Amino acid sequence: MKKSIIIGIMGGGKATRKDEKAAYRLGGLIAKEGWILLNGGRNAGIMEASAKGAFDHGGLTVGILPDDNCDRVSEYIKIPIITGMGNARNCINVLSSDIVVACPGGLGTLSEIALALKNSKAVILLNFDGEKALELYNTKNLLHYAKTPEQVIDIIKKIHIHF
Amino acid sequence: MKKSIIIGIMGGGKATRKDEKAAYRLGGLIAKEGWILLNGGRNAGIMEASAKGAFDHGGLTVGILPDDNCDRVSEYIKIPIITGMGNARNCINVLSSDIVVACPGGLGTLSEIALALKNSKAVILLNFDGEKALELYNTKNLLHYAKTPEQVIDIIKKIHIHF
Amino acid sequence: MKKSIIIGIMGGGKATRKDEKAAYRLGGLIAKEGWILLNGGRNAGIMEASAKGAFDHGGLTVGILPDDNCDRVSEYIKIPIITGMGNARNCINVLSSDIVVACPGGLGTLSEIALALKNSKAVILLNFDGEKALELYNTKNLLHYAKTPEQVIDIIKKIHIHF
Amino acid sequence: MKKSIIIGIMGGGKATRKDEKAAYRLGGLIAKEGWILLNGGRNAGIMEASAKGAFDHGGLTVGILPDDNCDRVSEYIKIPIITGMGNARNCINVLSSDIVVACPGGLGTLSEIALALKNSKAVILLNFDGEKALELYNTKNLLHYAKTPEQVIDIIKKIHIHF
Repeated sequence: MKKSIIIGIMGGGKATRKDEKAAYRLGGLIAKEGWILLNGGRNAGIMEASAKGAFDHGGLTVGILPDDNCDRVSEYIKIPIITGMGNARNCINVLSSDIVVACPGGLGTLSEIALALKNSKAVILLNFDGEKALELYNTKNLLHYAKTPEQVIDIIKKIHIHF
Repeated sequence: MKKSIIIGIMGGGKATRKDEKAAYRLGGLIAKEGWILLNGGRNAGIMEASAKGAFDHGGLTVGILPDDNCDRVSEYIKIPIITGMGNARNCINVLSSDIVVACPGGLGTLSEIALALKNSKAVILLNFDGEKALELYNTKNLLHYAKTPEQVIDIIKKIHIHF
Repeated sequence: MKKSIIIGIMGGGKATRKDEKAAYRLGGLIAKEGWILLNGGRNAGIMEASAKGAFDHGGLTVGILPDDNCDRVSEYIKIPIITGMGNARNCINVLSSDIVVACPGGLGTLSEIALALKNSKAVILLNFDGEKALELYNTKNLLHYAKTPEQVIDIIKKIHIHF
Repeated sequence: MKKSIIIGIMGGGKATRKDEKAAYRLGGLIAKEGWILLNGGRNAGIMEASAKGAFDHGGLTVGILPDDNCDRVSEYIKIPIITGMGNARNCINVLSSDIVVACPGGLGTLSEIALALKNSKAVILLNFDGEKALELYNTKNLLHYAKTPEQVIDIIKKIHIHF
């Protein structure tokens, strides 16, 4: 059997209407090519939209779920893979995809881009903006910058008060 | 028992002499504070240097190994955790750390920063440069940019020749 | 979309000719029912035989691979899921299956039976013999029996010589 | 540095008073030998008892948690490793232990025994009874027996009504 071509679509569980429309269209185009669509499997955002796009055009859809049950599976996923591993499943997403497409998303999507490239997978960024995702967290005071080990210790001690 | 404070040190398996020196010094400072140092556990780069720094100053060191055996464990790791899970262990690194410090590294380190922030962990960047890591892969022709779903399909078909 | 029914077929990478024939027949019967066959995905033993059985009868086959690459995927697996997680993928096998069938196998299969039951999945043993798998290891001097904590320490010290 | 000796103590989250006492004593003996105790990390049953035993005798304790947070960590665990991977962490338990001791437990413990032996780890059964664990599930009508592939299909169809 000729190996199937699996295209992984990464992207956020929250997405704008415009980004969902693009994901839906992308899912449809993938289905028309006869490729398999793989994504994170949930019934939200880019995942739901891209799965529906493929499903509506007769495509085969695989979802790699972070949960240990089916509660949040998109109804447009034909084959739900239930990992029960949280974000560790992001590694499976990229290892199982021949090519990874990153739609707009947050830090989960950024981790998948990094892991895909690390594993020498081709990655196509479809309007994904990595800087934006990081900036968001910057404003939450989670991201800090240091030049020396001593500064690191100082920052830890400041944060430490909130432990 | 008061819970231990665990500081996760992320960073590349390959590192410059200067970055290794900083990691060694950081490991030593963490040990002096009585904190536990957690890293990726291998006998190379930032991992080896930071573990040695903590070890030489009487600290307790924990290494979360991607491998399924002990062949590449740093000798300065007192407690090697053997996951056999490759990069999926990156999730464990960040979930197990109270605070994550990112030393210079590549895409593995970038994935850990993203996963740490996603899990609302404070992250301190010690001279980590995310753009640099991504640029490197850009030049390998692994990273592509698209504005529309149709462009994504075109790019896949171009890459596809090399399947 | 009505959720697909996924039947997980567990079993050894090494199998007798007779057991492979039964696995092939089982794969065919599953395909004829329109159910999806899920297994460990490798090109050996029960995995290869059951996948071929389903494939030859027009069935859809999903393989959850322990490896981080496609080198040992059965050619009868349409959708290879590459986990890179070794035996940790056994959990995914059982969580993703609606019903688990255990064909003859070793300790990997035994672990899957245990994990499936723990997750309240129905398990059908098709000539699987758990005692046999454990006995094999008994003769290798890996399995020891103790009645008290003190006996445990004594046994560890005896084994310890070989560390 | 001479590698630490890590003894993995497996066993149920629910345990009899007698079995908890034995686990506590075992933890203490391990600590007195200067070995590190590794277990599943939760504040219940064999995990809590063995960690307390080691802690009360000055031992170092490592817990490999299935959860993605610290809510159920035993207070006697000095180093909690937070995996967020559910039962997939059972693989880490056995890979990280030099020797595995199985105290009385259920199917999780049985899966760890199987995975440990598969990875050629010595396993000491301290009053663990595998048959008992399986029998329990037998009575729940989860465990079924078949001699032929055709019987498997018949059983699936019977169970199937409850899908």
